[in-house]
Amino acid sequence: MLEEQFKKTIEKYGLFPKRSSLMLGVSGGPDSVCMLEAFARLKSELKLRLLCVHLNHCLRTSADQDEEFVRDLCKKKNIQLVSQKKAVKKIFKGNSLEQAARQVRMDFFLECSRRHKIKTIALAHNKDDVAETVLMRMIRGSALRGLRAIMPKSKFKNLTLIRPLIATTKEEILTWLNDEGIAYCIDESNLTPVFLRNKIRLDIMPQLEELNPQLKSALTNLALSVGMDYDFIYSFSQKEYNRLKKQKGPHYIKLKLESRFTNDMHPAVVNNILRYAIEEVKGNLNKIELRHLEEILDLIKVRPQGSIVSLPDLEVKKEGGYLTIKSLIL
Amino acid sequence: MLEEQFKKTIEKYGLFPKRSSLMLGVSGGPDSVCMLEAFARLKSELKLRLLCVHLNHCLRTSADQDEEFVRDLCKKKNIQLVSQKKAVKKIFKGNSLEQAARQVRMDFFLECSRRHKIKTIALAHNKDDVAETVLMRMIRGSALRGLRAIMPKSKFKNLTLIRPLIATTKEEILTWLNDEGIAYCIDESNLTPVFLRNKIRLDIMPQLEELNPQLKSALTNLALSVGMDYDFIYSFSQKEYNRLKKQKGPHYIKLKLESRFTNDMHPAVVNNILRYAIEEVKGNLNKIELRHLEEILDLIKVRPQGSIVSLPDLEVKKEGGYLTIKSLIL
Repeated sequence: MLEEQFKKTIEKYGLFPKRSSLMLGVSGGPDSVCMLEAFARLKSELKLRLLCVHLNHCLRTSADQDEEFVRDLCKKKNIQLVSQKKAVKKIFKGNSLEQAARQVRMDFFLECSRRHKIKTIALAHNKDDVAETVLMRMIRGSALRGLRAIMPKSKFKNLTLIRPLIATTKEEILTWLNDEGIAYCIDESNLTPVFLRNKIRLDIMPQLEELNPQLKSALTNLALSVGMDYDFIYSFSQKEYNRLKKQKGPHYIKLKLESRFTNDMHPAVVNNILRYAIEEVKGNLNKIELRHLEEILDLIKVRPQGSIVSLPDLEVKKEGGYLTIKSLIL
Repeated sequence: MLEEQFKKTIEKYGLFPKRSSLMLGVSGGPDSVCMLEAFARLKSELKLRLLCVHLNHCLRTSADQDEEFVRDLCKKKNIQLVSQKKAVKKIFKGNSLEQAARQVRMDFFLECSRRHKIKTIALAHNKDDVAETVLMRMIRGSALRGLRAIMPKSKFKNLTLIRPLIATTKEEILTWLNDEGIAYCIDESNLTPVFLRNKIRLDIMPQLEELNPQLKSALTNLALSVGMDYDFIYSFSQKEYNRLKKQKGPHYIKLKLESRFTNDMHPAVVNNILRYAIEEVKGNLNKIELRHLEEILDLIKVRPQGSIVSLPDLEVKKEGGYLTIKSLIL
């Protein structure tokens, strides 16, 4: 059942063709051990070249044991392993530990990708992760973009991320590991805000499942359908953004205020263009809310030349037929 | 504060211009009494022509008293009232009582609109209604379309529905009515699945608000931003749908399978086109899930001419360069 679903997910979302080279992100927890085992069983049928990658964040007391466990497992399965130690806590300053850990992990994956010339990495996110993330984003406040949550296939720079366990619940994974007698490390405590995620997982989710036993499917379907819609608006808006972007310095971007942009464009597309510009200027969309975008829209449409809107970490000015978006974090 | 917000919402969403004629849907509950009072106070400033409309569903023992209350109130405010009795329970067969009541109500509004030549009706939905609806849709399973929940301004046939209390919470409404010494009928028990909505209102929502005190704003912002995105995809897809629709009988629609549709079109747009066709053929999207749309997509892209897909109440056939979508409820 699990192996069937695993294969079906790979086909359904076109995750990779036969004869692919894949990196597998393996922490040693149940999800990634399950994924490694499923790939090992499919390896010769799909003629895959596999490379396991493991990052030791040095965040938990058992981090070195986990690394050792993954090393043994790969040896047994006869799959090459690349592992690295990186003390996230030492690197992390300011921002959240979650963001720091993510950045270190993605940098490690990118480096492995370059060094081993493999452009695809499989990650072991499961159906529960998707459902919880949708709910969490919804509760914390999110637009369409955030509700996509975790997609079966996504891009990060030159790397393609694929998630073949995305249709499989945690329970199915644990049952399968148990039935097959496969050992794994105790689940890595998730680095995302532990309180919120645990509260959702252990408390809110079961209550909502009483209202709809198919809740996890409802939420993952929502994420998928929203993901598709977002992708369409994204690619449409991105084209317009690239056309309007006329100048870019280290801390600012200038957008041409042509009449198609200021008068005729759908507000959903205008908002996206503003989001892209802000993200490119300040690196993220933290603290930027819908009302801020509405204020910029008002600046574009109504306010006189020379007007300025001040937003968190950001200054937006209308001048000489251009909108200048400038970062205040220098 | 409430009156200010009421005016600001009207301006922000361009609900209607000065000198408008408006119908007000007034049940007699706190929300609609608050709306009536706010409009009465703005009437001369905005030079409005107001007409109250009240439908007596005959669903509650106090239904006649509520009607009497609204009649007195309108007399006091010197606003014309049109009311009608309609025993929903007698009409309702099959389907849900919720849907039956909605249909009777909308028919009544349309009839008033025709008879009194007023094309806009104000409804008293508040911020709590929006937040609860988003959550409820999410829990029951929904795509982008459902998450829009309740928009500040929407269309139903020739009628424009506006909701000037959409930025105001229930608590703000009750506090204001109390401060101003305004009487109202006991809140009409909502006709939507009472168990689910009450569970969400009284149990789930307060727990989620502990996780994010700004939850109601987060959910209403989500609905607004999703509403805008949906509107863009909707109008884009609608254009394509009208182009592809080549023939329409009483129970079927034929879509031309041109290569732009079958090969080049974004799947989000294809899914929408299929949703429009299905809705036009069978009157609604009940029981149609994402996996059904995926099956039609597979039919379009991969399966040979003459193939048929059977869906709930529906048959979809690929033949002679056309996709025929046929209702099985005759």
